Amino acid sequence: MDDRYDIAIIGSGVAGLSAAVNSKIRNKNIIVFGNENLSNKLNMAPRINNYLGFYNIKGSDLKDKVKNHIDSMGISITYERINAVYAMGNYFVMSVNQKNYESRALVIATGVQSVNLLRGEQEFLGRGVGYCATCDAPLYRGRVVTIVGYNKEAEKEANFVGELASKLYYVPMYNKDLKLNNNIEIVLDKPVEIVGNNKVEKLVLKHREINTDGVFILKDSIAPDQLVPGIELDGGHIKVDANMKTNIRGCYAAGDCAGKPYQYMKAAGQGQIAALSAVSYIDSLQK
Amino acid sequence: MDDRYDIAIIGSGVAGLSAAVNSKIRNKNIIVFGNENLSNKLNMAPRINNYLGFYNIKGSDLKDKVKNHIDSMGISITYERINAVYAMGNYFVMSVNQKNYESRALVIATGVQSVNLLRGEQEFLGRGVGYCATCDAPLYRGRVVTIVGYNKEAEKEANFVGELASKLYYVPMYNKDLKLNNNIEIVLDKPVEIVGNNKVEKLVLKHREINTDGVFILKDSIAPDQLVPGIELDGGHIKVDANMKTNIRGCYAAGDCAGKPYQYMKAAGQGQIAALSAVSYIDSLQK
Repeated sequence: MDDRYDIAIIGSGVAGLSAAVNSKIRNKNIIVFGNENLSNKLNMAPRINNYLGFYNIKGSDLKDKVKNHIDSMGISITYERINAVYAMGNYFVMSVNQKNYESRALVIATGVQSVNLLRGEQEFLGRGVGYCATCDAPLYRGRVVTIVGYNKEAEKEANFVGELASKLYYVPMYNKDLKLNNNIEIVLDKPVEIVGNNKVEKLVLKHREINTDGVFILKDSIAPDQLVPGIELDGGHIKVDANMKTNIRGCYAAGDCAGKPYQYMKAAGQGQIAALSAVSYIDSLQK
Repeated sequence: MDDRYDIAIIGSGVAGLSAAVNSKIRNKNIIVFGNENLSNKLNMAPRINNYLGFYNIKGSDLKDKVKNHIDSMGISITYERINAVYAMGNYFVMSVNQKNYESRALVIATGVQSVNLLRGEQEFLGRGVGYCATCDAPLYRGRVVTIVGYNKEAEKEANFVGELASKLYYVPMYNKDLKLNNNIEIVLDKPVEIVGNNKVEKLVLKHREINTDGVFILKDSIAPDQLVPGIELDGGHIKVDANMKTNIRGCYAAGDCAGKPYQYMKAAGQGQIAALSAVSYIDSLQK
C-alpha cells in the first residue's frame, strides 16, 4: 500500500513551511516536498526589511531561523520532485518517478519561475520539450538529449538520463561547481530558441547550435497546471479564494504561485490560511 | 492647516505594523494610531508556535521583536484613539477629539473585540450608549455617567469625563491597579443589561443596578462601521478583496478585522498586502 498522509505540501519556501507548521500544530500527518536549502529565492535574498520581527535580516539567516523552527517541531522535508498530482476525488496521488504518495488534502506552494520561456518552448512542449527528465528518460534511450538546468538538483537528473541517452548535453544556468558524470558534455552558453519541424530537432544557443532529440528545461518550479492537471489559473497564477481554496476540492494554494505581491510575509500568511482551510476540510470528511 | 499623510494606519497590532513597515519602505509619509504596548492581545499571548521564524515565543517577546523592528525603521506610534474616519473622496479625515488628521489612503487594522454585546447595548446605541466617552462628554455635563472599561486607557477617559459629570461610575472589566480620580465610584460587578424607555435609564449588573443617563463601553477596538461610516461588512468583518481593498476608494483593511482566521502570521501578511495596495493607489493619484 502507498503512504497516505492527511496533508501533502508541495514547496519548502516560506508559504509551504508556514502551512507545514500550522498543519502540524493541528496534529495532522503531513509530508512536505522540497529542497535541502528550503528556498533558493530566500537563501539568496540579500537583506529583508519587511518580514515583521526581523529587521534587516539576510535571506540565508531568515532561512536558518525557519529551518530551526521546523526542526524544533519535528518537521522534515522529503527531497523529491513531484512530477504530477492527480485529484482522485477524496484523495490526491503525487507521482514521483517510481513511487506514489497519497494525501487527503493538498497545499501547493511551488512559487513562481521568473524565467522567460525560450522561443519554441511552448510550441514543442510534449514534442521533445519537457520539464521532468527522469520521467521521460525511457523515451530517450539511445538518443540525444539536452538538459537546461537552473539549479543543482538538475544535475542528478542529468546523471540519471546520461546513462540511457546516447549523448547528453548539460547547459547550466547558474554558477556553481558541477557534479556531472564524465560522459556528459557541459555547454557554457545561453539558450535562445528551440527549433524543429514536427518535433524538436535542435537547440540554438547564442554561440552554437546543438542537434538534439529532446530538450529538458529544469527550473525551480513547475507550472501549476502542469503539476496539477485541471487546476484553474488566473493570469498564470493559481486562482484562489480568500481561504486559499482552488477550484479542486481539497486543494489549496499559497505564496507566489497564488499571485502577487511576491513577498515573504504575504506568503507565510497565506500558507497559514491554506493549512487551516485544509485542516477544516479534512475534519469535515467522513473518514 | 491639518497634517496630511500619505497613509494613515489605525491599529498597532501585527497587521497594522506590517502595513507600517511596508509603507515606510516604499517611502510613504505615514501615521500609525495605536497603543503604547502595541497590542494587548499579542502582549498577553502565552506561547506562539506558528509565527514562522520564531518557535515557541512568548507574546510579549514577539511584541519586543516587533517593537525593535519598527524602532529601527524610525516608525513611531501616535497614542490617540480615533473616534471616526470620514471618506472625503480624495482623502480621509480622522477625528480625534479636538484634532483632525488627514491622509490620502487608509489602512484599518483595528482587530476584533471578542466581547459579546450587552443586552440593550445595540438598542440604545446613540441614545445614551456610546463608545467614546471623551467625544460625547459635553452632552453629559452635570449628569450621571457610567463607564464600562476594558483596558487601562479607559481610565483616562473616565478621569476626563468625571470632571464634567455630576457622578461617574467606573466598571473595570480587567484586573489591574486602577488610577482613577477620587470622585469616581468604582463598581466591581458584571454588567448584564442596559435598560430604559426612549433612552438609557439604568445599567443592570449582576448584583446591583445603577441609575445612569449614559453608559460608555470602552473596548480595545471599535466596530469598523462605527469607525468608518459607510464601510461594507460581511458577517461583522470588513469586506475585502484579495488586495485587501474595501468598498471605499483608498481604504484597505488587514488582520482580524478583515476576517478569520484570527492569526498573527495571516495578519502580518494581510498588512503587507494592504500597504502595497495603498502605495499603488497613492502612486496612481494625480497629485
